[in-house]
Order: sequence, then C-alpha cells, then structure tokens
Amino acid sequence: MNMLELIEKKRDGGVLDREEIEFFVSGVTDRSIPDYQISAFLMAVLWKGMTDQETADLTIAMSRSGKICDLSDIPGTKVDKHSTGGVGDKVTPILLPIVASFGIPCVKLSGRGLGFTGGTIDKFESIEGFNTSVDPSDFKNKIDKCGMLLGGQTADLAPCDKYLYALRDVTGTVPSIPLIASSIMSKKIAGGADAIVLDVTCGSGAFMKDTDSAKELARRMISIGKLAGKPVTVVMSSMKQPLGEMVGNILEMYEVVSVLQGHGKEDVKKVVLTMASEMLALTDVGKGKTKQELMAACEEKIRSGEAFERFGELILSQGGMLQPDGTPVFVDRPVDIMTVYADKSGYVSSCDALTVGEASCLLGAGRMTKEDVIDMGAGIRLHKKIGDKVSRGEELFTMYVGTKNPVSDDRVDEALFKMNDAYEISDSPVTPPDEILEVISS
Amino acid sequence: MNMLELIEKKRDGGVLDREEIEFFVSGVTDRSIPDYQISAFLMAVLWKGMTDQETADLTIAMSRSGKICDLSDIPGTKVDKHSTGGVGDKVTPILLPIVASFGIPCVKLSGRGLGFTGGTIDKFESIEGFNTSVDPSDFKNKIDKCGMLLGGQTADLAPCDKYLYALRDVTGTVPSIPLIASSIMSKKIAGGADAIVLDVTCGSGAFMKDTDSAKELARRMISIGKLAGKPVTVVMSSMKQPLGEMVGNILEMYEVVSVLQGHGKEDVKKVVLTMASEMLALTDVGKGKTKQELMAACEEKIRSGEAFERFGELILSQGGMLQPDGTPVFVDRPVDIMTVYADKSGYVSSCDALTVGEASCLLGAGRMTKEDVIDMGAGIRLHKKIGDKVSRGEELFTMYVGTKNPVSDDRVDEALFKMNDAYEISDSPVTPPDEILEVISS
Repeated sequence: MNMLELIEKKRDGGVLDREEIEFFVSGVTDRSIPDYQISAFLMAVLWKGMTDQETADLTIAMSRSGKICDLSDIPGTKVDKHSTGGVGDKVTPILLPIVASFGIPCVKLSGRGLGFTGGTIDKFESIEGFNTSVDPSDFKNKIDKCGMLLGGQTADLAPCDKYLYALRDVTGTVPSIPLIASSIMSKKIAGGADAIVLDVTCGSGAFMKDTDSAKELARRMISIGKLAGKPVTVVMSSMKQPLGEMVGNILEMYEVVSVLQGHGKEDVKKVVLTMASEMLALTDVGKGKTKQELMAACEEKIRSGEAFERFGELILSQGGMLQPDGTPVFVDRPVDIMTVYADKSGYVSSCDALTVGEASCLLGAGRMTKEDVIDMGAGIRLHKKIGDKVSRGEELFTMYVGTKNPVSDDRVDEALFKMNDAYEISDSPVTPPDEILEVISS
Repeated sequence: MNMLELIEKKRDGGVLDREEIEFFVSGVTDRSIPDYQISAFLMAVLWKGMTDQETADLTIAMSRSGKICDLSDIPGTKVDKHSTGGVGDKVTPILLPIVASFGIPCVKLSGRGLGFTGGTIDKFESIEGFNTSVDPSDFKNKIDKCGMLLGGQTADLAPCDKYLYALRDVTGTVPSIPLIASSIMSKKIAGGADAIVLDVTCGSGAFMKDTDSAKELARRMISIGKLAGKPVTVVMSSMKQPLGEMVGNILEMYEVVSVLQGHGKEDVKKVVLTMASEMLALTDVGKGKTKQELMAACEEKIRSGEAFERFGELILSQGGMLQPDGTPVFVDRPVDIMTVYADKSGYVSSCDALTVGEASCLLGAGRMTKEDVIDMGAGIRLHKKIGDKVSRGEELFTMYVGTKNPVSDDRVDEALFKMNDAYEISDSPVTPPDEILEVISS
C-alpha cells in the first residue's frame, strides 16, 4: 500500500477500506506521509466525499492516534458536549454546573478561540488564577472534588486530527463535512466520552451557514456515533444573531453569572436547558423522564442556587478566585467606550452574528492569528435583539475594551462601522428567530 | 494575494486571472509557496479545470520561469515537434534529417524515457559518442554546421514545469488536460519555437487512452498556441499497436536507418511523412503547396538519399561515430534470445502497444525508476502487425537483450508471458488501424 494509490483511488471516486484509512492516519501521525500527499488527498476528499463507514473509520483511527483518556474508574455515564461555535456562545460554563448538580461527572475538554468565535478556555482564563492545564492523570482527583473538570485539549489527544486540521487550514480543505465531523468526533471519543451531545450552530455567525449543511453535519456525526458505539444527540441551534446579550470574554462570564443567578436572556437559557436536558437524557438520571420534566429539573437547579454554588466549586477546584459574594475575580474589567442609540423607532430586524463577532474581534476580544493576545475586557453588549421593539434614542449596543490593551482609534471606528451595519430596524413587527431549530438523536 | 485564496478560488470553481497565475508560477519557481499548498491547488485544478485563457496564462508564465532559448539569430521559421509518447515511436530521428534537407533549421529538445515509452535522448545515446548535452549558447554554431540540433532538456528551461511535474507525479494530479497541455507547450515555447507540430498519440500504449481525451488535449494545445501567438498543428496518431516493427533503443535506431535508406514499415513512413509535411506547411517552404505535394517532396528526400546523408551529419556534429557505410556505431548490439512462432494460422487482430511496451521494459529497454540504467540492446522485433496474414509456424516476434546487462530468467519469462498476451490471431481477415486519426490546425 502506498499513499499515491490512496490519493488516486479517492480522486477516482473510490471507497477506502479500514486498512487504507488506518495506513493514512498512522502515516500522518508518524510523519511518514509527506504533507504534499496529505493535502492532495484532503482536496480529493473534499471533491469526492466519504461514505459514512469511511468517515467512522477515519474518526476511530484518529481518536486512537495518541493517548485516550480512560475515564472508566469514574463511575456513571460520562457525557461530553461540544459546540461547533458561535458568537456569544457561553453555554458550557452554565451547563456544566447544572449537569454536575445531578451527580453526573462532567469532563469537558475545550479549545481556544480563533477568529470571531470565542473559545471556552479563553472565557475561563478571564478568571484570576483559573488553570486549564490539567493532566489526564489528575482528572479523577478533580472529579472526586467537585464533579466537574474543564481542561484544554492536550497535544497528545488525537494528534493526527491536530496535524490534519492545521494543514486543512492552509490548503483550502476545511469545508468538507466528513472531515469536519471526524475532526470533532475523534476528539470527543479520545476524550473518553460514553455519550455525546452536540450543539450544531447554524447561521451567519456559525461555521455552517445554512440548514442543509448543518443537518448533513448532524447526520454524519450521529452516524459516526452509531458506528463507534456511542449515543449521540445533536441540538441544532440558530446563530443568526449572537446568543444572549454579551459578546467578549469577561462580558460573557458576567452573563454566565447572571443566568446562574436566575436572570439573563431567555435565548441563552433556552439553549442551555435544552442541551442540559439532552445530556441528562443519555444518563441514568434521564430514565423514565420526559424532556419537559428534565428541563424543569434543570431550571430548578438554577432557581435553587445549587448550580451557581457548583460553578463556584469548579472555579476553586481549578485555582480560580472568588469574591465574597461567590462571583469570580476577573483578570481585568470591561471599560465602556461608546454606546450607540437607535436613530429611529421600530423593531430590530437584524443583529447579524458574523458582523457582531467581527466587530468584537476588532475591539480585541478575539484572535486574528494564533499569536494574538486576547483583551479579556473587550467586547460588545447588545441591548436589543431581533424582534425587540425599540424607540428612537434608546440604547442599541455598547462597546467595551479592557484597561490594559487599548485598541487603536482606527479599529474602534471599524468596529463601530461594522456594528452599525449589523443592526437593522424595521417599521413593522418582527418575529424573533427560534433558538432551537431541531433536536436529532441516534 | 496569498496562495490560500487562490486554492479556495479554484476549489469553488473560480477563474484565476493572469496576475494570480503569475503569482502561483513565481511562487513555485522560487519555492516561496509550500508544496502542500501547490498539491492542494493542483488537485483543485484537476477537479474544477481551467479555462483556455487560464491554461494559456499558465503556459506562458511557466515558459518564462527560467531561461528562454533565443533562436532569433538563426534565420527562418523554427518549427519544433513533440510527441506525447508511444511504443516504438522513432519519428524524430527520421523526421529531423528530412526537414533539415529543406533548409529548415531544426532545434529539437527531447526528454529521456520513463516507463514503457522510450525517450528520443536515450535512442540517440545508443550511438557511440553522441552527446546530447548542448549548451544553448552553442545552438547557433551547431545549426550553422548541419542545420540540426538534438539536445536534452536543461533544468533551467521552464523550471516551474519541471518542479510541478515532479509533484504531480507523486500526488495523483497528472491526468489533468490543462496541466498536461501547459506542461508540453511551456517547454516548446521556452525552447524558442516559432511554430509547433504535435503528435498526440492515442490508444493503449499512449498517455491518452481514448479519442475524446486526445482530441481535448489537441484542442487545448491549439488554443494555447493561438493565445500565445504560435501556430500549432496537431497530428493525432494511433497507438493501438507499436509504431513500426522495432521496440527498444538500438533496435529502433536500426529501423530509423532502414527507413532513411528507403525501406521500413509503411506505418512509420506514414506518420513521419505526415509530421514532416505539417512542419514544412508552417514554413516558407510550404507556401502555395498542397499537403500531398509536401509529402511527396519529403519522400523524395528519402529516395534521393539526402535525408540519410543529413542523418549522418547530425551524428557527426554531436560527436557520434559512423561506420564506413554511413550507419551509426552503437554502444552495444542486440542479442536474439528467443523467437516465438504462430501456433495457428489466421490474421493478427491484436498487438497491444501497452503490453509490448511493458514486455520491452522488462527486458531492460526502459526505466522502471529514474535511477535504472537502460540496456540499449534490449527490445522486441514484431514480425507481424495487426491485419497481417500469418501461417502456423511463422515468426511472430523476437526478443533481444544487450551483451552487457543480461536480465534474469524471471524477467524474460514475464516478458514472454506479456508478449503472448499482446498478440491475438483471428480466423477472419482484420483491417489494420489507420495510423493517422486526424490532423487539426490552428
């Protein structure tokens, strides 16, 4: 077997068998296949696609390309969650304490953000002292302590995926659904999950721009789960506008605290409660209960204050600092630099997620390149969302930067320009978009 | 402009403009674009194709990526010829002396063979002393001397094409018609040709297996010629069976001598005279003359012995040695190791070019890898061709090896097996295939 034959087979529309896919994955991992053959192969995959079996074989082979987290000595079903990313997506920090309140062990391995979508790791690192570098050997200890763990993805987890992703990023081979699906799923499987709940976002601010491709990605990941023997549920959520009212790292953590204290926008709560109840449904807790009952139980964990208390325990468990009132100590604070007011009355008809994300990134909340340092205090607060009634002169949005990394006036101007572009106000009433588009289970 | 954008544009079916193609070619040539981006781009080109304008822009940019042979101080129209390769293709050594007999300066830059198709350079190097390493600065001197020159392609002629070709070879991106067309034409243009006659072979022993793809390649090369301001004629010839009766280096040179002395198989003569007359048609010699008249004039150059005399001059001009009778001194001599006889009477219905080529290669006449040393004496003589009547017990073919590099018995057995497979004898009469399928001019 040689790599040229595999490229030619895929190029000509052939289907690779498991042995061939394992040859490819091991050759990528040990660097015996040169990059120029890998990238030609990836483009051929983008062109000719992969069957469900090929995609599952690729996923499983990639998940075995490095260390596999063995969580078997942690009792119970370990359910992992993953989001394909979005603007203002602060679901994980709210969800984990809720699910952990039911005694479900939560091990969440997250990434850093690149581009306009923030990373969960970045958000937690906006808390003073919070340490996301947890060695897999320390997982059980942390879980015993507070039932939760939030770690950064380590290089030795699915290293083949890491290498392929970096290559796809510079060779125009990212937008292949089998490659996206196998990349996500290989990390979840290597992370030791027994069951997986996926938030596939869909809309301008998401990786999947339209419902068809989001559905196809969902279908693929469920199929991989079936072939790999892991139950998978996909929640398709809207990323037409940002989730919630805050975009930016500390700003989003403010909103996390607000939701956990029983406040916060309905859209965030809706997505969090849906995801949390779907996670519970895959565990013993969910047995014999309807989704409505599970959602109500999750909401009760917020109302009772238990979830907020668990949130504090997670922070302390990983070295983070808390104020006397139980809220986190942050590394910086957002400074309000400009508020824009509605220039006419009407109904918000657009608050484009991509444009808001780009504006927030310009203010310093995201990375343009891997080397960029994030301004934890930067971001945007959206006073109005799609469907909201607005009167002339009312606040539309506020822009923030941190105290340490002031951005240039040019970038603020550019962000302001984008924000004005993101918002549209219509004379007639507008129906807000549904947050949850569909829930699909294996 | 960056390479990722170019890959994405082509991947999404876009058309690259001249500036983008020049960016690509210069980045390949100066190695500033990494191989993994080049190969992803090449696969995207194979997938989405190229317009005629893109193909011409690529050709011209590649032709300018290194030195360009300036033949402008050699008077007259410089017509170059090229063949896409075949088994038993000994057209060039016969054609050059004929065309040169008309006072047309012939500069022919050829390649070495790889795989089952022999290279013209290899065939000339079977002549004792013949030197194909001619520096471009010495071209005029050689042309003044005998009107002809046969050189190997130098690394500094269209180096971008050389680099791309090597990468295509290992990334499954060879079979793209725009890439094949631009590769051939860039070398011809860099070689300083004013006009080009191309032999596009078609059939099992050729790169183009079917007439449709051969026609598309022909159309592409004519289009490039138009856009580059160079008249181009394509002769489409059949490679269903080998050309002539000899396959192998010295064996083919024997046949060259035989044809130039007025003997030889009709099929070789037909292709040579067609190509020669098409070359003349693009020069002043061809003005006001019909193709029939030009073919007759070429045939007369053989009959009169002038072409044979010129052949000797070419050999002497490049250091080669001649016998007292004007035939070349060879570096070795073919040794007859086996003759196979027909086991039934009938008509030859198959003498498959690819299979004969592979058998000849097994005997040592071709290279399996770039490092292989050719056995100049090895090859096959075909006593019968398609359409020939054959009686049981008559000679079908003879296999040869050189005196210095005897091959293993295993390889001889394998070659014999292939040769028996190549031949088929039918009970009913068979019409021999047309040598010339079509002639297309710009």
